[in-house]
Amino acid sequence: MTLWKSYLDQNRERFVSDLLEFVRIPSVSASADYVKDVERAAAWVCTRLDQAGAENMAVLPTGGHPVVYADWLNAGPDKPTVLLYGHLDVQPAEPLELWESPPFEPEIRDGCVYGRGASDDKGGMLAPILAFEAHKAATDTVPVNVKFLFEGQEEIGSPQLPAFVAEHREMLACDMIFSADGLQWAEDEPNIIVGLKGLMGLEITVTGASADQHSGLHGGAIANPIQALSHIIASLKGLDGRIQVAGFYDDVVPLSEEERAQIARVPFDETVYTKELGVPGLFGEQGYSTWERLWARPTLELNGISGGYQGKGSKTVLPSTASGKITCRLVANQKPEKIYDLICEHIAKNTPTGVRVSIEQLEGRADPYLMPKEHDANQVAHEVLSEVYGVEPYVTRLGGSIPLMSVFLSELGIYATTLGFSLGDENLHAPNEFIRLKNFERGQQVYGLLLERLGEMSVKGH
Amino acid sequence: MTLWKSYLDQNRERFVSDLLEFVRIPSVSASADYVKDVERAAAWVCTRLDQAGAENMAVLPTGGHPVVYADWLNAGPDKPTVLLYGHLDVQPAEPLELWESPPFEPEIRDGCVYGRGASDDKGGMLAPILAFEAHKAATDTVPVNVKFLFEGQEEIGSPQLPAFVAEHREMLACDMIFSADGLQWAEDEPNIIVGLKGLMGLEITVTGASADQHSGLHGGAIANPIQALSHIIASLKGLDGRIQVAGFYDDVVPLSEEERAQIARVPFDETVYTKELGVPGLFGEQGYSTWERLWARPTLELNGISGGYQGKGSKTVLPSTASGKITCRLVANQKPEKIYDLICEHIAKNTPTGVRVSIEQLEGRADPYLMPKEHDANQVAHEVLSEVYGVEPYVTRLGGSIPLMSVFLSELGIYATTLGFSLGDENLHAPNEFIRLKNFERGQQVYGLLLERLGEMSVKGH
Repeated sequence: MTLWKSYLDQNRERFVSDLLEFVRIPSVSASADYVKDVERAAAWVCTRLDQAGAENMAVLPTGGHPVVYADWLNAGPDKPTVLLYGHLDVQPAEPLELWESPPFEPEIRDGCVYGRGASDDKGGMLAPILAFEAHKAATDTVPVNVKFLFEGQEEIGSPQLPAFVAEHREMLACDMIFSADGLQWAEDEPNIIVGLKGLMGLEITVTGASADQHSGLHGGAIANPIQALSHIIASLKGLDGRIQVAGFYDDVVPLSEEERAQIARVPFDETVYTKELGVPGLFGEQGYSTWERLWARPTLELNGISGGYQGKGSKTVLPSTASGKITCRLVANQKPEKIYDLICEHIAKNTPTGVRVSIEQLEGRADPYLMPKEHDANQVAHEVLSEVYGVEPYVTRLGGSIPLMSVFLSELGIYATTLGFSLGDENLHAPNEFIRLKNFERGQQVYGLLLERLGEMSVKGH
Repeated sequence: MTLWKSYLDQNRERFVSDLLEFVRIPSVSASADYVKDVERAAAWVCTRLDQAGAENMAVLPTGGHPVVYADWLNAGPDKPTVLLYGHLDVQPAEPLELWESPPFEPEIRDGCVYGRGASDDKGGMLAPILAFEAHKAATDTVPVNVKFLFEGQEEIGSPQLPAFVAEHREMLACDMIFSADGLQWAEDEPNIIVGLKGLMGLEITVTGASADQHSGLHGGAIANPIQALSHIIASLKGLDGRIQVAGFYDDVVPLSEEERAQIARVPFDETVYTKELGVPGLFGEQGYSTWERLWARPTLELNGISGGYQGKGSKTVLPSTASGKITCRLVANQKPEKIYDLICEHIAKNTPTGVRVSIEQLEGRADPYLMPKEHDANQVAHEVLSEVYGVEPYVTRLGGSIPLMSVFLSELGIYATTLGFSLGDENLHAPNEFIRLKNFERGQQVYGLLLERLGEMSVKGH
């Protein structure tokens, strides 16, 4: 067994303790109440990078939640420089009452760590740090030059990161980028994700009367904002699952026959899928398979709705306002700004009389991302995953958005490869999030082997 | 000046203190958190009735919030017995942040008392008690036999009161009923309300996946409960304001030409109305005037909607459930149970695929109520109001529901006459509820004069 592998084995328990300690910090980026905790998480990551043997640790300001940078550039100029990315912020934990154990008091049950962020992305982003430490501690060197970049605002769409990356082009310059924020295919099947969706969010607020009114005294004579908002929402998407906003699909690159055939080769079990999610059936755009809907078709989803009385029992109020939060996941070559404008136009045309509507674009725009399958970073990842898992990875896309991927491409000129170990059933963004310790460990092995293999490559152009 | 009138004048300040003390008790009937406060309010009313000179005070159990009963039956058998009704419970105070002064710390500003329940109905129900006290204290007697009935569950639709009234027919037996829960027409114009709407409430819950999901990982492949709920809500009412539930209007007694003419004589100023409510315009069922919509046409209003993420910023969640609260205001001869069944059928037919729907009927059913305009209790009220205000009252209907009115009719055989002094602009059921002290005092005078005039009537059949 290689030295770095033995080191990972010998320090397994300590690394789990690190994960528990990291999850205990409630680094929720979406709420102003947790700003200090995101900062605490950044400080924690700095300390951990220091302990791992990295250099030049820094918590860098962005104007919003900070970024952690560190590097180790002593492998020599003939070795590639690899940028390793992940995020230290987490989703809000609400609704709290559905958690079996408190979200920020992680618990180990049945070989899994339960806690908000355990899988997305704290467990994920520890893998490259621990793999780096294993090489450094076991051999007193690392096969390649390494830069670490961990951000604190991925879960709100990385609003300040594009500017940050643009302003730090030199610091972040590299030959390859790997992102530890990604998914493996199944418990024992690896995956390389070549496409990600873009993101555009907005909030619609519908206002009728200037204050809540008695539903008996005024009901029937003035518009009800909840009713009006429902009409607007219903108008956005047909019962056939097709988005009704004029021009919405205009810039979508249609799937080629070859791509459809590729996607059709990826196994999909409708019974397992619907049972796992607990849905009574599938629902989506007519004319596309589930993988096609998830990977290659844009979506428009309501993330939240709110208005009037939400307590127990009945309150006969005719509410003053109602609001809904929407996010669209976009595919190549849709542009967030254009989609926002089209939706605004649609809402203006479909607003019932008697109410006023205001629309606010939410933070977290992202362009869609599509990487050439034959890219050399993908080739190395393919090799490493095949070796660690014993089976070849699937080549897939992802319905989720990682805004930084397209920013890296436009600002640094480098395609980023996702190399993550979460699984879709691990309640990412939902109560009772967990990570399998088996995958937490396999992630470390993948990054350990990746560093080794990258060390065998010479830098192009040198 | 008559003795009871002088007494009211002399005790004006003390009576305002009583109102402030009463409003300080947060007797919210809709929330389990305030059960003890509703009980405290009942005890307070008992003590106040005792102080006023009433007899046989009792807080009586109902299985839910209690009822306060008291009487004074010493006017003699040739005098009528009058039942005076009001309610001691109040609406929830939320949203708290919109109150200028705390809802349960009443404040006097510009001749008005601000606080939850000040107008609906604590100020109202004190009027008959204080008028009774004025007669009793000033003359050591009262012109008629009086029974008091104050309930603690009007704001949740009086769920236990029908059974309570049925079980206490003898105790509540009377010749006339006056309800202190009602509205005057304008600051100096009285009103007699001959019709009230019925009430039926329900909550729809739409469920997709069994837990919240990542909108990127599953969006587009499964149904979104908020989207589905919006389709259902949009299907309930057309953009023309007409309710689309099959059979909904079948039992509505159409307005006669005479009734439409009567209603058309009641002044309505669209500019003032829309300005007062702050709405950009009217919205309602085509083919009817605003008074007709409010008084004689049934309504279906969303009181609340809830689902997914409601915090600040964005959360890219595909929620598991969404729910909406609906109340229908019914007119003669609609039946709450039938309307509930029709809506359930409609929803079953209009539920999009991919979700499950459950429907729960909320507490607080009420039949619609329509009193003959020429009824003799109305005649006395007409006379008294004309004298106190110096102008004749309008004869109108009300879009609100007071479930007990139809229960009194069916169980006691007596039509109840509303005699209340709230105004539509006093933020009933909304933040910053208030009562004008001028009307608080005029209410006492009206009830004082009512007792005097009723004492001049002989009991029919005696």
